[in-house]
Amino acid sequence: MSFKTNATIASFGGKLLKLSHEAKTTNCTMGLNLYLPPQASKGKVPVLIYLSGLTCTGDNCAEKGFFQHKASEKGIAIVYPDTSPRGLNIEGEDESYDFGTGAGFYVDATKEPWNKGYNMYSYITSELPDALFKAFDDKLDGDRVSLTGHSMGGHGALTIFLRNPEKYKSCSAFAPIANPINAPWGQKAFKGYFGDDNTEKWKEHDATELVKTKWPKDKQLDLLIDVGTGDNFYKQGQLLPENFVEAAKEAGVGRR
Amino acid sequence: MSFKTNATIASFGGKLLKLSHEAKTTNCTMGLNLYLPPQASKGKVPVLIYLSGLTCTGDNCAEKGFFQHKASEKGIAIVYPDTSPRGLNIEGEDESYDFGTGAGFYVDATKEPWNKGYNMYSYITSELPDALFKAFDDKLDGDRVSLTGHSMGGHGALTIFLRNPEKYKSCSAFAPIANPINAPWGQKAFKGYFGDDNTEKWKEHDATELVKTKWPKDKQLDLLIDVGTGDNFYKQGQLLPENFVEAAKEAGVGRR
Repeated sequence: MSFKTNATIASFGGKLLKLSHEAKTTNCTMGLNLYLPPQASKGKVPVLIYLSGLTCTGDNCAEKGFFQHKASEKGIAIVYPDTSPRGLNIEGEDESYDFGTGAGFYVDATKEPWNKGYNMYSYITSELPDALFKAFDDKLDGDRVSLTGHSMGGHGALTIFLRNPEKYKSCSAFAPIANPINAPWGQKAFKGYFGDDNTEKWKEHDATELVKTKWPKDKQLDLLIDVGTGDNFYKQGQLLPENFVEAAKEAGVGRR
Repeated sequence: MSFKTNATIASFGGKLLKLSHEAKTTNCTMGLNLYLPPQASKGKVPVLIYLSGLTCTGDNCAEKGFFQHKASEKGIAIVYPDTSPRGLNIEGEDESYDFGTGAGFYVDATKEPWNKGYNMYSYITSELPDALFKAFDDKLDGDRVSLTGHSMGGHGALTIFLRNPEKYKSCSAFAPIANPINAPWGQKAFKGYFGDDNTEKWKEHDATELVKTKWPKDKQLDLLIDVGTGDNFYKQGQLLPENFVEAAKEAGVGRR
């Protein structure tokens, strides 16, 4: 799939591209931001995928995240994808901020009618990178890709990383939803996308479960998770990072 | 006047403060952003005042301008004031984007009813700095203050600098309205704030006029003005930077 360039913005010697493309997995036009550092004009650079949180588009962090100066210095491209399909006209898609539009939760829905396009897992892990590395094959190094994200996007980064131990170079997360099957946001999303009873499926997208079951026991797990203890969602029990740390210790895959 | 701190946000080792205070000149509560670099915790730092353009508040550039990383590195505080009084309930204040709310044009209005609070010149040159240097007297160096701004704010930076040759250390402007008395935005604003016939007053807030009449002939004028030639407002004749350059040459105050 080729990309349409809707805007090109000079940024710290490189370029911020506002892109869109027709995506099969999500069944709609998807917008995204791509930051190309100055080094990308001379050859392939490593790529960091930033997964955004609830309600965001690819614009939020690209415009307000202050990543570009450091990406320019280090020579890293950043991909800022959207957080869900948009405009599928599924009943209820715009009813709440934490389900449907802006809240794809980086899963492939199995439940009708959401399975018609709420396939952000396939979009982020396959369709989007395949399209990007084809369209920017002289600038983006498909062999050096890392993940990060915030909140719902931190959940996305952790779960996608843990499910694909060979695919990404590194993973970090700001205030991630680290144990969604035990948190209100995650439970609402997984009920909606997978069904109330499909709890085995829920576990396939829960970082705390995945670190116990999916990550190779003989492979050291290096992750950076940063959560502020004053974070309201942390205090409300939406993030549960301690559960993840405990599970990683039990699994014996952490550094300590 | 003391400030209320509505939020404190960690930023590049320093702090972005969301402040508000009761202002006499503008007759309302004024919001602003103040970036304190890490160096401000050890002593007084120089201050850059960034004047925003039409429709903006003090939030826009603080959140999306990407200034803080460099301000942190260089040890510069940045003040991001609002662009007009708000909520004065003057008839017509919210009717257009280029007059009234969000469009104070950094003048003291002489015409009723705008003179009831549209006094952004006095606010920016006196009331706000007086209050800031009092409230943050151990952090902000009132003897090292510079100006910059964008569009209407570039006009503000240039005119305030030219009217006060001894007050500021430096001045620069992105895409400033450099000759407002000959541009549609400026003419609309000056008619509204000063009256149709008060063209002598108009000239007191026109950078191209001021550089001819106000700047000391024996003082070299160092300014940086950056305008993209693809800028739509430049192409529409709202900015007119060539008129300013021509006037500075005529006045013989530039470096060349």
